[in-house]
Amino acid sequence: MLNFNSDYICGAVPEIMEALQHTNLEATPGYGLDHYCEEARRLILDACGLQDGVVQFVIGGTEANSVVVDGLLGKCQGVLAAVTSHVNVHEAGTIEAFGHKVLTLPSPGGKISAGDIDRYVTDFYRDETWEHMVEPGMVYITFPTELGTLYSRSELEEIAAVCRCHKLPLYIDGARLGYGLASPQCDVTLPEIAQLADIFYIGGTKQGALFGEAIVSRRPGIIPRLFSLIKQHGALLAKGRLLGVQFKTLFTDGLYLRYARHAVRMALKLKELMQAKGYELYIDSCTNQQFFILPNRIIETLRKCAQFELWGVPGRESTPVRLTTSWSTTDADIEALAALLSWSNRRKNGHTISC
Amino acid sequence: MLNFNSDYICGAVPEIMEALQHTNLEATPGYGLDHYCEEARRLILDACGLQDGVVQFVIGGTEANSVVVDGLLGKCQGVLAAVTSHVNVHEAGTIEAFGHKVLTLPSPGGKISAGDIDRYVTDFYRDETWEHMVEPGMVYITFPTELGTLYSRSELEEIAAVCRCHKLPLYIDGARLGYGLASPQCDVTLPEIAQLADIFYIGGTKQGALFGEAIVSRRPGIIPRLFSLIKQHGALLAKGRLLGVQFKTLFTDGLYLRYARHAVRMALKLKELMQAKGYELYIDSCTNQQFFILPNRIIETLRKCAQFELWGVPGRESTPVRLTTSWSTTDADIEALAALLSWSNRRKNGHTISC
Amino acid sequence: MLNFNSDYICGAVPEIMEALQHTNLEATPGYGLDHYCEEARRLILDACGLQDGVVQFVIGGTEANSVVVDGLLGKCQGVLAAVTSHVNVHEAGTIEAFGHKVLTLPSPGGKISAGDIDRYVTDFYRDETWEHMVEPGMVYITFPTELGTLYSRSELEEIAAVCRCHKLPLYIDGARLGYGLASPQCDVTLPEIAQLADIFYIGGTKQGALFGEAIVSRRPGIIPRLFSLIKQHGALLAKGRLLGVQFKTLFTDGLYLRYARHAVRMALKLKELMQAKGYELYIDSCTNQQFFILPNRIIETLRKCAQFELWGVPGRESTPVRLTTSWSTTDADIEALAALLSWSNRRKNGHTISC
Amino acid sequence: MLNFNSDYICGAVPEIMEALQHTNLEATPGYGLDHYCEEARRLILDACGLQDGVVQFVIGGTEANSVVVDGLLGKCQGVLAAVTSHVNVHEAGTIEAFGHKVLTLPSPGGKISAGDIDRYVTDFYRDETWEHMVEPGMVYITFPTELGTLYSRSELEEIAAVCRCHKLPLYIDGARLGYGLASPQCDVTLPEIAQLADIFYIGGTKQGALFGEAIVSRRPGIIPRLFSLIKQHGALLAKGRLLGVQFKTLFTDGLYLRYARHAVRMALKLKELMQAKGYELYIDSCTNQQFFILPNRIIETLRKCAQFELWGVPGRESTPVRLTTSWSTTDADIEALAALLSWSNRRKNGHTISC
Repeated sequence: MLNFNSDYICGAVPEIMEALQHTNLEATPGYGLDHYCEEARRLILDACGLQDGVVQFVIGGTEANSVVVDGLLGKCQGVLAAVTSHVNVHEAGTIEAFGHKVLTLPSPGGKISAGDIDRYVTDFYRDETWEHMVEPGMVYITFPTELGTLYSRSELEEIAAVCRCHKLPLYIDGARLGYGLASPQCDVTLPEIAQLADIFYIGGTKQGALFGEAIVSRRPGIIPRLFSLIKQHGALLAKGRLLGVQFKTLFTDGLYLRYARHAVRMALKLKELMQAKGYELYIDSCTNQQFFILPNRIIETLRKCAQFELWGVPGRESTPVRLTTSWSTTDADIEALAALLSWSNRRKNGHTISC
Repeated sequence: MLNFNSDYICGAVPEIMEALQHTNLEATPGYGLDHYCEEARRLILDACGLQDGVVQFVIGGTEANSVVVDGLLGKCQGVLAAVTSHVNVHEAGTIEAFGHKVLTLPSPGGKISAGDIDRYVTDFYRDETWEHMVEPGMVYITFPTELGTLYSRSELEEIAAVCRCHKLPLYIDGARLGYGLASPQCDVTLPEIAQLADIFYIGGTKQGALFGEAIVSRRPGIIPRLFSLIKQHGALLAKGRLLGVQFKTLFTDGLYLRYARHAVRMALKLKELMQAKGYELYIDSCTNQQFFILPNRIIETLRKCAQFELWGVPGRESTPVRLTTSWSTTDADIEALAALLSWSNRRKNGHTISC
Repeated sequence: MLNFNSDYICGAVPEIMEALQHTNLEATPGYGLDHYCEEARRLILDACGLQDGVVQFVIGGTEANSVVVDGLLGKCQGVLAAVTSHVNVHEAGTIEAFGHKVLTLPSPGGKISAGDIDRYVTDFYRDETWEHMVEPGMVYITFPTELGTLYSRSELEEIAAVCRCHKLPLYIDGARLGYGLASPQCDVTLPEIAQLADIFYIGGTKQGALFGEAIVSRRPGIIPRLFSLIKQHGALLAKGRLLGVQFKTLFTDGLYLRYARHAVRMALKLKELMQAKGYELYIDSCTNQQFFILPNRIIETLRKCAQFELWGVPGRESTPVRLTTSWSTTDADIEALAALLSWSNRRKNGHTISC
Repeated sequence: MLNFNSDYICGAVPEIMEALQHTNLEATPGYGLDHYCEEARRLILDACGLQDGVVQFVIGGTEANSVVVDGLLGKCQGVLAAVTSHVNVHEAGTIEAFGHKVLTLPSPGGKISAGDIDRYVTDFYRDETWEHMVEPGMVYITFPTELGTLYSRSELEEIAAVCRCHKLPLYIDGARLGYGLASPQCDVTLPEIAQLADIFYIGGTKQGALFGEAIVSRRPGIIPRLFSLIKQHGALLAKGRLLGVQFKTLFTDGLYLRYARHAVRMALKLKELMQAKGYELYIDSCTNQQFFILPNRIIETLRKCAQFELWGVPGRESTPVRLTTSWSTTDADIEALAALLSWSNRRKNGHTISC
């Protein structure tokens, strides 16, 4: 069975497995107070071009969002985010469980615009009843977006400028940050991200770690009682050094980006092949998630031999699907999929597939 | 200064003031356990055609919504509601503060449709990732809507049927229920509302009481620990009998509807006059709230002599406004406003207004 | 039936009823933005000896506590309070519903001590696991306490000093503040309270208003987005001017304290009579709540003619009870109770009571 | 440096590391929907003697508690728990963050009693103001307790009986369940635990896994929308099969108990040695956590060569400390500690230690 289901279907990159094995018997303090976490923090700050700043590790992406959004917002405040964003759709209401509202903005291609943010905030205070409403208290964007698309540097600069102007902290969800930075279309660097965002996280789970994300901010103290908040939100790992070991590994010798580049290369090869076969793009992504609109008949057949995700609610005749690559995707996987798809096409003419 | 600002700008109808004065020195148990609340409960159940059921009084409409929505929803569930609804916009996030999400539906004219509810719920469970999402757990509608419009009986029946089919309790916010029932366009009765809704509330604050709303349900036990929940949500009045005295008064001799009918008559007279003068309707309302699009210049002048609410964010040249009538609006008020508006018109030609 | 059940069993003092009647037909903006609220604010600041400061009206005492505690605490913080305090026991978990923990201190006689606060906070940070625990973020006391007792001025000064030292805002719940200030044992004034507390509230509901409490702070901005928070917590009154009218009345010509003094005089007369008859004090209160330990047999008989509250769980043979006076208690009420109690005593010798 | 700091200072038992390595490149669905989780569930149900039931894996113990307590409690309900319990003390307020109160019971030796539970609940409903209070909605105990002590079978049976009688679900936190079951003093089995508790969890993090706990209940559906709740509480692992692989390993060939027995043996040896040297027990534990009261001078010296936890706030002259063993503790570790401690003793006579 081929697997394009997601970028968290395998374990970790070999270097991480080795490091975990190698350090397994060491005794270290719990909860991230160990020297591996310390070293990983230093490596991450260096990679971000930051002298000083906060780096805190949490278990997963939903946990990172839950902690950061709750940590940044005051009472009666909400987070401005794309209607398609992870915090609005796919976190089972964790933002609301901690008392906050997601204030949605339209998001063509998964992105929100500086103009829409500015309009929302300006209009908010022009409404005479604004004190009866949830105040926008921060901005959340994903890079890459849930649809695999990227903000350009100038788009990010505009958003950051609007945020500064309205005194709204800008938070970038980088669950797949590496795949963004590794994309040929990306015109922004990690140190630039670290300056543009008030706070962001570098994803590990979807980038070759067993699990774990690194919350980073150039503003120490941006979230008071951050450690306790991480504990309260269920985001703290007892054997915290496992996070340190993994991120130390990923941020040594450029491993993080090296694997990300591989995955993106596989994704673009896949995209090219699919388009060559005449399949329609659902969205034009330049990162490791690729979206196509496939006829339901093709989907049905293909699912016998390959795993991938239906994107949203199935349509009557065709449905958007997501094919995802990762560090573990091989050229052979792509070619096998391509082979299946030619069969799929021929099936229109009455042929049968056997997987 | 004329006042069309809202229906909660004056005190209470004279009968209520008299009853409060009359009972002022009586000593009764607190928190609604007194005989006035008991009598009011009985009168309300009778007016609703219910033999049995729950009636609980709370202080205000936001409190009623906060209690009922939190009381009906389970963990990880949200409330389906119009994007323009009070719970989504004007309650400073009380739904989210208690941990729930508002799942918005489009609402042309302030109303949501049975079809949209059905589609939302059906699509929800067709999405393979639904367990990562907030589950629709109830439906909230307002009658009349925030835009003064009314659901027809058949629309309500369709919504109730869809709710039953999906096992979603239907909650009707009746902050202005009387103005709805009193409208010439209304084809539904209070007993029918009481059957269509699983739970609803009868508004007092905006219908001639000093304050207070009556939560009503034909299903006893629909919300477990309702009394405690009311306390926890800040909706419990210590001198609870004040609510009983007021609702007893309103539901004696048809007072509630009599005052509502007066207000609606005033509103329709106002609407007719405004239209006769050529002002554009923002929405075609048949209840006590009337909405027009006025040129900003007119608004500016008019506001010197009359209070009313801008509806949302001011436009560049013109802005929607809301003019509201209540039990205390008089024919003279309407005529004075009409007179002002002719002056306003003439101002275009350079004349001045003096109020 | 005599009524010593509580201080919120009657309506309002006549002056308030008159003022409400008198202003009933005026049209004013809602939500406390009217001139009555403005005048009441000014009168209250004057009475508190404050040039500047915040005064916000809310509907009831639980609402005041819910708003202030949530407003002052950060994430992962709790409120230090007496184990017997209202916020810990009698608010159906509203503090927890908004995400915070009540950190309890022992409270002999209903009071907590500066020493215990200091010890709690000092020990907290000496515990190596403190970041896994809920941080003390404020101190809550009641004046008078739930047991009718009073802090002396020097006790309050010590508590305020400890709070300042640990940077914990001090909040005083003054649901019965007037009864405290009116007690012969009180050695503190309202302006002193206003300086000692960072924020406090002046109770109306239990002090002769129909309802309503005034949150006061000498520190403007102590709670960000206070208006929205009041809305979100269900504590905002639509016809807000009702609160203004009532507090304006109470703070004109010293009405507030005058009624409070009457109630305390009645309470002390009651206490004297009860003690003269040999009834045991449960607690030695000097305000309008009096506590006795009565034999269950006496309670049973007395309850046929007089209402009062059992204080906590009934004992096997005797039970603490609370007898409360208010502005409406008369000398005749006290004497009637006294007369009943002599009968009660005689019943021990076989006589019967008829009420 | 010797390490008796906790049972989560090392990585995982070798069998788990091997299994993770072995399965690392497999592609499986995320979020626990894989075959490893399925196999682990079956093995756990078997070990619990359950034909049917729920087994859900979460990342850590605080997460398990956060999910189960929130999942079992209704609105306005709290959890009865020991004043010393993890949910009351060491979870940074996660119970309160999700809206619930911890209702504390006294806990000599870390345990609560059936009698105290019964009295609390009975008294609760005898209090005439109970509807203003947080209702007890479940019972939480730890096995072993935070102090290493164990409930006997008859104590558990009494607690379970009281819970059944009052319709309160009983939840057992088994963060160190194995160390309890492996103790020579334990007279209860895993299948008995599974019957006595309505729901419980089997700890992995502190029992030789990298991380992970298994929530188990013989009552399917006891928590509605459990999967979503786990997601919302930050307790869901993307690469969920890591939990399956680990628990499959632990529950194959009795590995779980085998390692637990080793750790307990080490702990009891340590206890014996310490007592032989005349050190005072702080509590008499029979599991892998041992508690002593050590003079501060000894602590200071010992900490240069060995890690362990101060238990609570340091005393003036001596302080309780906790020494914890785990699967990775060796006889050599115990002997080295013993050797250090004779030095420590001699230091009283002026000798010096060099570690």
